[in-house]
Amino acid sequence: MANIKSVGVVGAGLVGTSWAIVFARAGLQVKVYDASESARENVSRQLARSLMQMSQRGLLKLSAQEVESRIEVVPTLVDAVRDADYVQESVREDLTVKREVAAQIATAIQAHSVVGSSTSGFPSSAFTESLKRREQFLVVHPVNPPHLVPVVEIVPAPWTSRDAVALAGAFMRQVGQRPVAVNREIDGFILNRLQGALLDEAWRLYSAGYASVEDIDATISHGLGMRWSFIGPFETIDLNASGGLAGYAEHLAPMYRRIAETRPIEEPWSDEAVARAHAERRSVVPSEDLRKRREWRDEMLLRLLAFKQGE
Amino acid sequence: MANIKSVGVVGAGLVGTSWAIVFARAGLQVKVYDASESARENVSRQLARSLMQMSQRGLLKLSAQEVESRIEVVPTLVDAVRDADYVQESVREDLTVKREVAAQIATAIQAHSVVGSSTSGFPSSAFTESLKRREQFLVVHPVNPPHLVPVVEIVPAPWTSRDAVALAGAFMRQVGQRPVAVNREIDGFILNRLQGALLDEAWRLYSAGYASVEDIDATISHGLGMRWSFIGPFETIDLNASGGLAGYAEHLAPMYRRIAETRPIEEPWSDEAVARAHAERRSVVPSEDLRKRREWRDEMLLRLLAFKQGE
Repeated sequence: MANIKSVGVVGAGLVGTSWAIVFARAGLQVKVYDASESARENVSRQLARSLMQMSQRGLLKLSAQEVESRIEVVPTLVDAVRDADYVQESVREDLTVKREVAAQIATAIQAHSVVGSSTSGFPSSAFTESLKRREQFLVVHPVNPPHLVPVVEIVPAPWTSRDAVALAGAFMRQVGQRPVAVNREIDGFILNRLQGALLDEAWRLYSAGYASVEDIDATISHGLGMRWSFIGPFETIDLNASGGLAGYAEHLAPMYRRIAETRPIEEPWSDEAVARAHAERRSVVPSEDLRKRREWRDEMLLRLLAFKQGE
Repeated sequence: MANIKSVGVVGAGLVGTSWAIVFARAGLQVKVYDASESARENVSRQLARSLMQMSQRGLLKLSAQEVESRIEVVPTLVDAVRDADYVQESVREDLTVKREVAAQIATAIQAHSVVGSSTSGFPSSAFTESLKRREQFLVVHPVNPPHLVPVVEIVPAPWTSRDAVALAGAFMRQVGQRPVAVNREIDGFILNRLQGALLDEAWRLYSAGYASVEDIDATISHGLGMRWSFIGPFETIDLNASGGLAGYAEHLAPMYRRIAETRPIEEPWSDEAVARAHAERRSVVPSEDLRKRREWRDEMLLRLLAFKQGE
């Protein structure tokens, strides 16, 4: 694996700035660029706040100051990517924008560099096909914010080189993330497909009147989600039967087949159900309290990460 | 709500014994019966072990001794249920057995008692239809082990009385569980339907070769599952867009529809995929280490519960 010393971050919203923390806390030099001047100006404030929170929870090996000193906001895209061994692109989820930015990056990078896109909505083949250096591009999709949630999906386009795929995975491990190798492109990759399958069934059950939004949520947050925060769905069933996964399947595949055959006919994501569910959520958390609740969520993620790292 | 003072537990395997802890730690008197003498003899050992672990993590308000002193193993089913205000049945998942035991309970209980079954596989209408006191029976389905995982699904049969449903829910809250009201019977209730939807998609992606068992698991355990251990799937998307749940749906329902339309055609739970996945799991955790890994899982659940109660 190539020795990655300097990293370019293109797009400095919440995701890009969080990525800058991931790279800098691992001791790397990071150059950050955003086309918006106000976004560039916001970086240092977001950094200071996130680093203070992490430092308080013992989640930084370096001091907050040392991490911050490794992150430089630069005035042009070329400045950010020219010397970078690895580039993480996190611009707006808009195919035209992704294409333009990928083209700009392609003309400025070195021959050994690898470029990962944070996109959740597009395969990289949708915006890298016509690039000269397209074999250096792939999707490196985080969960937000990546400095608190380790998983990263590595999704090559058909033309991404094997070396680029291997380097992206090894590099993610190096900086403390947990790479997931998605062997070929598919809508939603793995993570959002699993989330989508769960949400679709949640919507069907809600639309058909089986339970409230709050109670459906509770089956996960006070039930399945507790295990899933440290073991995945396959390991969960593997540990849940004396014969391991095969024993579990023998006993319970019939139940899951029956479940699949009795899906409520209601369409997931119907406008009517979304409107009712939204109203139900607002009766629990009014719009004006959403910001506070998001801060609580991020605080919980920080604490959970510290908890998991303590194991 | 009726004042519940004494509880009967019928079936004293892992689930029944865990239920006994739930009731006794809340200060109630519990009588436990199992048709198997060796199961009855095992209760005190399992109790001692679980109570010691909970006590070490600060998860008991009473002393372990006080909790244990409230649990009495009795020699007949009638002894366990005759004076009980609430009965929790946790016998083997076998419809014939469930029917027989329900009939025995029905002839012995008082007119005000409520009987909850721990079954995950059957609606209570499948084994209570012909009972004289069938309006007092319903499903009260825990996640194992209930003394560590709070969620409980409350699922009435068509003939369960409203009072019994209300009492079961209120009683579960009283003893510190988190009841979920499932408004009518459906295969798998809510929890296993959500788990099934996620597993079905995981199997499809695995069978079609998109990722390994270990990597699919990681998208949950190092990703989505971290949030889901304290907020459910609806709250997750509600907090994930500036416009709340409605704003999220507006932006992302099209992606989830696309995901649903591009499900891999591979059948979930195929024998071939199960065998491959089982082998993959055994290469990570050999059969002889499964017991140790289960102990680790239970230790993690204990710690996570203590963590969540600290919030």
